[in-house]
Amino acid sequence: MPSAGPSGFLGWTTALGIKDDSPDFTAVVSTVPAAVSAVFTRSRFAGPSVLLSRDAAAKGTARGVVVISRNANVATGERGLANAREVRELVAGRAGVAADELLIASTGVIGRQYPMDRVRAGLANLPQPLPDADLAASAAAIMTTDTVAKHVTLPCGEATVTGIAKGVGMIEPNMATLLTFFFTDAELDQPTLDRIFRRVVDRTFNALSIDTDTSTSDSAAVFANGLAGPVDESQFEEVLYQVALTLVRAIAADGEGASKLIEVRVRGARDDAQAKRVSKAIVNSPLVKTAVHGADPNWGRVAMAVGKCEDELDIDPEEVVIRFGDVETYPAPSTDEVLAAATEQMRGDEVVISVDLGIAGGAFTVYGCDLTDGYIRINADYTT
Amino acid sequence: MPSAGPSGFLGWTTALGIKDDSPDFTAVVSTVPAAVSAVFTRSRFAGPSVLLSRDAAAKGTARGVVVISRNANVATGERGLANAREVRELVAGRAGVAADELLIASTGVIGRQYPMDRVRAGLANLPQPLPDADLAASAAAIMTTDTVAKHVTLPCGEATVTGIAKGVGMIEPNMATLLTFFFTDAELDQPTLDRIFRRVVDRTFNALSIDTDTSTSDSAAVFANGLAGPVDESQFEEVLYQVALTLVRAIAADGEGASKLIEVRVRGARDDAQAKRVSKAIVNSPLVKTAVHGADPNWGRVAMAVGKCEDELDIDPEEVVIRFGDVETYPAPSTDEVLAAATEQMRGDEVVISVDLGIAGGAFTVYGCDLTDGYIRINADYTT
Repeated sequence: MPSAGPSGFLGWTTALGIKDDSPDFTAVVSTVPAAVSAVFTRSRFAGPSVLLSRDAAAKGTARGVVVISRNANVATGERGLANAREVRELVAGRAGVAADELLIASTGVIGRQYPMDRVRAGLANLPQPLPDADLAASAAAIMTTDTVAKHVTLPCGEATVTGIAKGVGMIEPNMATLLTFFFTDAELDQPTLDRIFRRVVDRTFNALSIDTDTSTSDSAAVFANGLAGPVDESQFEEVLYQVALTLVRAIAADGEGASKLIEVRVRGARDDAQAKRVSKAIVNSPLVKTAVHGADPNWGRVAMAVGKCEDELDIDPEEVVIRFGDVETYPAPSTDEVLAAATEQMRGDEVVISVDLGIAGGAFTVYGCDLTDGYIRINADYTT
Repeated sequence: MPSAGPSGFLGWTTALGIKDDSPDFTAVVSTVPAAVSAVFTRSRFAGPSVLLSRDAAAKGTARGVVVISRNANVATGERGLANAREVRELVAGRAGVAADELLIASTGVIGRQYPMDRVRAGLANLPQPLPDADLAASAAAIMTTDTVAKHVTLPCGEATVTGIAKGVGMIEPNMATLLTFFFTDAELDQPTLDRIFRRVVDRTFNALSIDTDTSTSDSAAVFANGLAGPVDESQFEEVLYQVALTLVRAIAADGEGASKLIEVRVRGARDDAQAKRVSKAIVNSPLVKTAVHGADPNWGRVAMAVGKCEDELDIDPEEVVIRFGDVETYPAPSTDEVLAAATEQMRGDEVVISVDLGIAGGAFTVYGCDLTDGYIRINADYTT
């Protein structure tokens, strides 16, 4: 719904035929230069899209982003880099902006070249001028095998913040690349935007783990074109956080084969960083994930996952408290009543596991999903 | 087959009724003091068995080991520690050795106390004197839900080395605790035994990963009672390595729900430590494991797993070579012929993935298994 989005963003979505006939291309371009902040995968196999976008975002000002789905354009060598440059130039030329004002992202199979004949033919139809952006359509076009499109819009004073994201939930999968883009007409200077964005990403996207595998193509960016005027910075951070958190929870719930969202809250840690390490160990444990899938209140697996943080020498099992929902399962004795109450907490679509380390005030919350037959089917019963 | 084992080890195996009526107890005791070397889990939730054994092994000389299966005796507090001490004392008293000359290990559900009435009643039947050890029976008694008992015997000059192990492959699981014990009548001084054992464990058990979860109770020990006289040290190390490697491969192949053993060989690394980090990232990747399960030559997932070793800044995608079996899949073009040949390499019971980083001479090989519906069923469709 273009009318509900931020002012001053144009866009276009189409099907280039990268792999099939579903939408696989979108571009979103601000009518004026926008402050930009972006973070990318740290993978050593990062592809040309990430390399080009990293340079573009480093300038602090950009016009928008181009996304191709169904092909990651990773491990494609010099030809892949040239293709990425050409795609960006074709879009920039027709949109009337400079190529290096556009970020580019790509997601799908690794190690295949873009079908450039089809890409060129499709982009020749790019309308001039671009119509207003339809960010819901953009969210749908960047899906690979997500089962639902993920887009959230919230107001922030006179301004509006819209976020879109894709990730996981594959039908013909290769890589659960996470792409997420935020568009706002709020006015913020770039250093402030950058500081806020990095803090928000740390508490949301960097707190998400579906299966411990890190994509070659993860990209997150925010574009603030300022057309709605200044906003209160702390209010903006809270709104951006809520938009990002809603997307993260949607991604976790739509994780490959997932039937339940898992939220792991660790507190009482030495510091937030320790809480994050412990919470990640829990949410990533295949034995915890399968216990959640089976609604099995097997708190011993949570204790195991805490215990395997073997370098955290100040963790003392005597001080640890483990809860499923609001039911204490350790050190409380595992009576039939306790186990029945804990089982009840695990039957819903969202399971909250809380661990208090009893050391100090550090806290962190992470989001993930259960591990199911569906994950195996999606990722094994597929042949290149 | 007691006759095929090393000289001077007595033993007993029985069913104490810890959980059901299958064998769940074994003790192996040397007739003379034996040099001992042992390594244990580094879990912060290590239980009383590990604590007592760590102290016993630290003396460098021991008589043997007592193992209870079907109950981990972990997160059981003071009472659990007192119970572990009592079990060890009961066995030591009847075997005519000091309690602190025995290691103790325990594996099974976390957070439950031993049924001490049944334990005491069962141990009252411990024969005096103990008969010769039947290490095959001991290997069977330490299984939790392994599908095959794991024991290997090899000669070393006049001496004999027998290793037993348990781990993974669960039917009513809680934790894939890895327990492994080696018995030999070779004569080695303790510092030499210790040095050899740690090197062997690093290349075998520390190179094994089924599901990234680290047990609270992992224990590995070697007992050398010297009754067969001195042996050539390098020959002994090679024999011990072969025994351990055979056990490790058996454990990987018997991994929970596993249908294929995966061997990941990384070479061309900066050093062996880097090769180990990269090989672990590959063998632990759920996307690589599911690709192997589906016999899908999706080398992009191997590239992804190499890439996520994001702190290894000297890894350059341009220098990396990826092979499935002996088929190069990257940077070789992914032609139909290449993919068909790679698929063929993935159809067997053992899949070898090789990565050359092209940096220097570091190398490491790790062992794991594919990720299947069976793993999910075993670990989710079980309720405490």
